[in-house]
Amino acid sequence: MTYCVGIRLKDGMVLASDTRTNAGVDHISIFKKMYTFGIDGERVLILMTAGNLATSQAVVNRLRRDIRQDDGTHLLNIPSLSEAADMIGRYATEVAYQTQQKAAMVQDGGGFGSTFLLAGQIKGHEPRLYMVYNEGNCIYATRDTPFFQIGESKYGKPILDRAIHFDSNLDDAIRATLVSFDSTIRSNLSVGFPIDLMVYRTDSLVMPKGKRITEDDAYFHTIRSQWSQGLLDILRGFDTPPLEYLD
Amino acid sequence: MTYCVGIRLKDGMVLASDTRTNAGVDHISIFKKMYTFGIDGERVLILMTAGNLATSQAVVNRLRRDIRQDDGTHLLNIPSLSEAADMIGRYATEVAYQTQQKAAMVQDGGGFGSTFLLAGQIKGHEPRLYMVYNEGNCIYATRDTPFFQIGESKYGKPILDRAIHFDSNLDDAIRATLVSFDSTIRSNLSVGFPIDLMVYRTDSLVMPKGKRITEDDAYFHTIRSQWSQGLLDILRGFDTPPLEYLD
Repeated sequence: MTYCVGIRLKDGMVLASDTRTNAGVDHISIFKKMYTFGIDGERVLILMTAGNLATSQAVVNRLRRDIRQDDGTHLLNIPSLSEAADMIGRYATEVAYQTQQKAAMVQDGGGFGSTFLLAGQIKGHEPRLYMVYNEGNCIYATRDTPFFQIGESKYGKPILDRAIHFDSNLDDAIRATLVSFDSTIRSNLSVGFPIDLMVYRTDSLVMPKGKRITEDDAYFHTIRSQWSQGLLDILRGFDTPPLEYLD
Repeated sequence: MTYCVGIRLKDGMVLASDTRTNAGVDHISIFKKMYTFGIDGERVLILMTAGNLATSQAVVNRLRRDIRQDDGTHLLNIPSLSEAADMIGRYATEVAYQTQQKAAMVQDGGGFGSTFLLAGQIKGHEPRLYMVYNEGNCIYATRDTPFFQIGESKYGKPILDRAIHFDSNLDDAIRATLVSFDSTIRSNLSVGFPIDLMVYRTDSLVMPKGKRITEDDAYFHTIRSQWSQGLLDILRGFDTPPLEYLD
């Protein structure tokens, strides 16, 4: 599986993805699931992906080939993020469909779909965060719904639900994101370190360098242990349950 | 959906289930998912169920009919919890299979399986907590794995993973259980109030009265708001992320 989070705030965007892929528990590997496309000063596009790795990679290859061939629309000249999200959705469904046709010949009905988060900004436009579904259609984050998750999303959702609002600052969003990954990694074997993190500031139009966070990263380690201790402290600080609870 | 938790500790067991059932978002109703069978001083059996409600109810009806007819093995005379768990698994797969046969005639391939948690103690035996799978087989909680969840389990798992150990006391387990339900209910529409809670003390051999916790229960309300505030306090108390994180 995979876990990716995209958060779209007033001040910018926080994007993070894990790097574990697995087919069963035997085939565990590290793959980057975050891809960048951009021209500094003009556009920044960051793509994260979950689902069938072969499909995801085929889509990214096609996006890159379009840029190399440069004879038509591609991510470096497409006018808007909305059209970019549509293009990704189209590619993803085409690739998944072709695989399905081949798989049917060998009697494999497996899931070949991928989902994507596309974050970025094109000069003259607002920053946007899109979620591209399996089915090829997409939605974008709004003030009311400022974050999206793809992959193994449930373990890490409660903390984001509580902590993330459109007006949260980037530091708070980074902290909540790390906690969300910590909860997911602890509860699910199929999500693992390192974590790729990118923080994009609204209107900067510069591709962030990004940070690869390993399991022994000092800051992550501090967050992890303070969080763990803090939770137990809250639990212990609660009043004793009323007697009728134990009846 | 549904959410049920069973925790087996040295001092006893904490069992909780929500009461929401839904078929789509239009058909939401309240159903108790916790059933009790026992003879004070001799045996206590508490059953919780998730999955197909028709299957779950049919299984419980069959368990009750067996007791009424009283001409063979039933939950009030079965020698061990392990055999009781097997019996429940057998009934559940039989009912699901029969439904499947009928459904096939009307072209419905839906999921008719149910899963169960069976907790209890029979005089002369240790208390046990069983999880009965969809497929009819079962496992029981051990010192290493002291809790099981069925239904919509992911949102509420991280807090149990952190807080619950075999040596935890009952009060702590109740608190962690309430937090686990709070996280699940906030993140998922298909799990809802009221929550049925039962706390069984090792060797008491008396059926607990149980407590139905509504959304406006004073203690739950305190826990919910202290937890929410506490989490935000921990997040805010973290050091600022290193500059390289934001690059």
